[in-house]
Amino acid sequence: MITALRHPLVALFAAAFLWATSAAAQDRDAVVQYSTLDALKAGLFDGQITYGEMARYGDFGVGTFNGIDGEMLGFGGRFWRIREDGRPEAVTPETETPFAVVTFFDRDRVFALPQGLDFKALAERLTGELPSANTPVAVMIHGRFPKLTVRAPRPKAPPYPTLAEALKDEVVWHLEDQTGTLAGFWFPAWLGGINAPVWHLHFLSDDHSRGGHVLDLTTGEGEVALDPTPRLTIILPESAGFDGADLSGR
Amino acid sequence: MITALRHPLVALFAAAFLWATSAAAQDRDAVVQYSTLDALKAGLFDGQITYGEMARYGDFGVGTFNGIDGEMLGFGGRFWRIREDGRPEAVTPETETPFAVVTFFDRDRVFALPQGLDFKALAERLTGELPSANTPVAVMIHGRFPKLTVRAPRPKAPPYPTLAEALKDEVVWHLEDQTGTLAGFWFPAWLGGINAPVWHLHFLSDDHSRGGHVLDLTTGEGEVALDPTPRLTIILPESAGFDGADLSGR
Repeated sequence: MITALRHPLVALFAAAFLWATSAAAQDRDAVVQYSTLDALKAGLFDGQITYGEMARYGDFGVGTFNGIDGEMLGFGGRFWRIREDGRPEAVTPETETPFAVVTFFDRDRVFALPQGLDFKALAERLTGELPSANTPVAVMIHGRFPKLTVRAPRPKAPPYPTLAEALKDEVVWHLEDQTGTLAGFWFPAWLGGINAPVWHLHFLSDDHSRGGHVLDLTTGEGEVALDPTPRLTIILPESAGFDGADLSGR
Repeated sequence: MITALRHPLVALFAAAFLWATSAAAQDRDAVVQYSTLDALKAGLFDGQITYGEMARYGDFGVGTFNGIDGEMLGFGGRFWRIREDGRPEAVTPETETPFAVVTFFDRDRVFALPQGLDFKALAERLTGELPSANTPVAVMIHGRFPKLTVRAPRPKAPPYPTLAEALKDEVVWHLEDQTGTLAGFWFPAWLGGINAPVWHLHFLSDDHSRGGHVLDLTTGEGEVALDPTPRLTIILPESAGFDGADLSGR
């Protein structure tokens, strides 16, 4: 094969193949997720997919890490990890995840961030901007946040508890006057159980010093971009844990 | 472009690109479906995708047609339509569907068809063969069926009723001593609402004279092949009807 690649025609053919397969994998209006929210809730905290592979399906997204060791957000092709110390670090491609959701972000609909809102009021305003009650939407917000409450889980070791149990000792930071990016998704109610039927947002400050899963906020000046994603791919774990999991959402 | 294609290098590059994109689209362990069961149940009987496009995602599957004008089953790369007259015909690529489910079928697990069973008993035996309680499975059965009860809907015109209403005047045939193919899927309960969490089978006789959605059967000699599909892609309709549909499954 190596010898064959020395022939310019074969090399050209191989280059075309690689470029085309890469292009074909980039369905920009598809959201691709590994595992399901109910599986994560049930304590399936170890996945078999890497962020290197997830990056084939998107340059933007949210997720967690095996052992729920951190919050993940990605945008502009860079993926970040916020652990219990609250300090963002770059995600390495070989890092595995039990639950992640990505897409290639397009700024399909852009508008000014409504100011002076808390998280609940912001969520209501964003819901009012949805083009469809039944189609998932990726959302990216850049702006100033006079107040921002974020969290990261403390990592857990097997045998894993449920997600609700695991989050009881989460670390919470009450931050002030942050400027940065919120990345996340809204999923329709009919996909509840598969993903969170809420505005699920993670934060990274512009200076890369702070971040986490957003619990509350106050909005300042900024910009909202929405990207409806009418195609959803779910990659299921191929593991005994997933095969036998109770996914009834109880 | 036509002129450029006359150059052998460009033509080779183009051929490699087309072959590679086609190959990349063929994720053989993915089940790809258009719309959702709850959307169909709610009366969304007109879709905007063709069977020509669905064939890019699979050589095997089940579905229906706009206006629920027939039952569809496909296997071996050929798609069939059974209308209210009960006579199978080939599906043309430009035919649209409001709901269809396809995959590239692999005979991952093959075993003899248990004989003398009715549909309920067969379903229980097939469930006992599932490798995972949470992963969708495609199933293809070829064999003899001493008894076989199949149906096709009568087509409907807008404004559409619910699916339950629309099936009240379905046409039912009680067939005897049929030899042919059953094609269909089993979906886990956690995907209920998105697809049918049962053994959902359509039939085509070997002589292409009879077919339909299976309501009951008695099994004779034959063979079962199962194909677990750990990746699921849902292509959502991009229509006002879908955007506003009540997908709560009520």
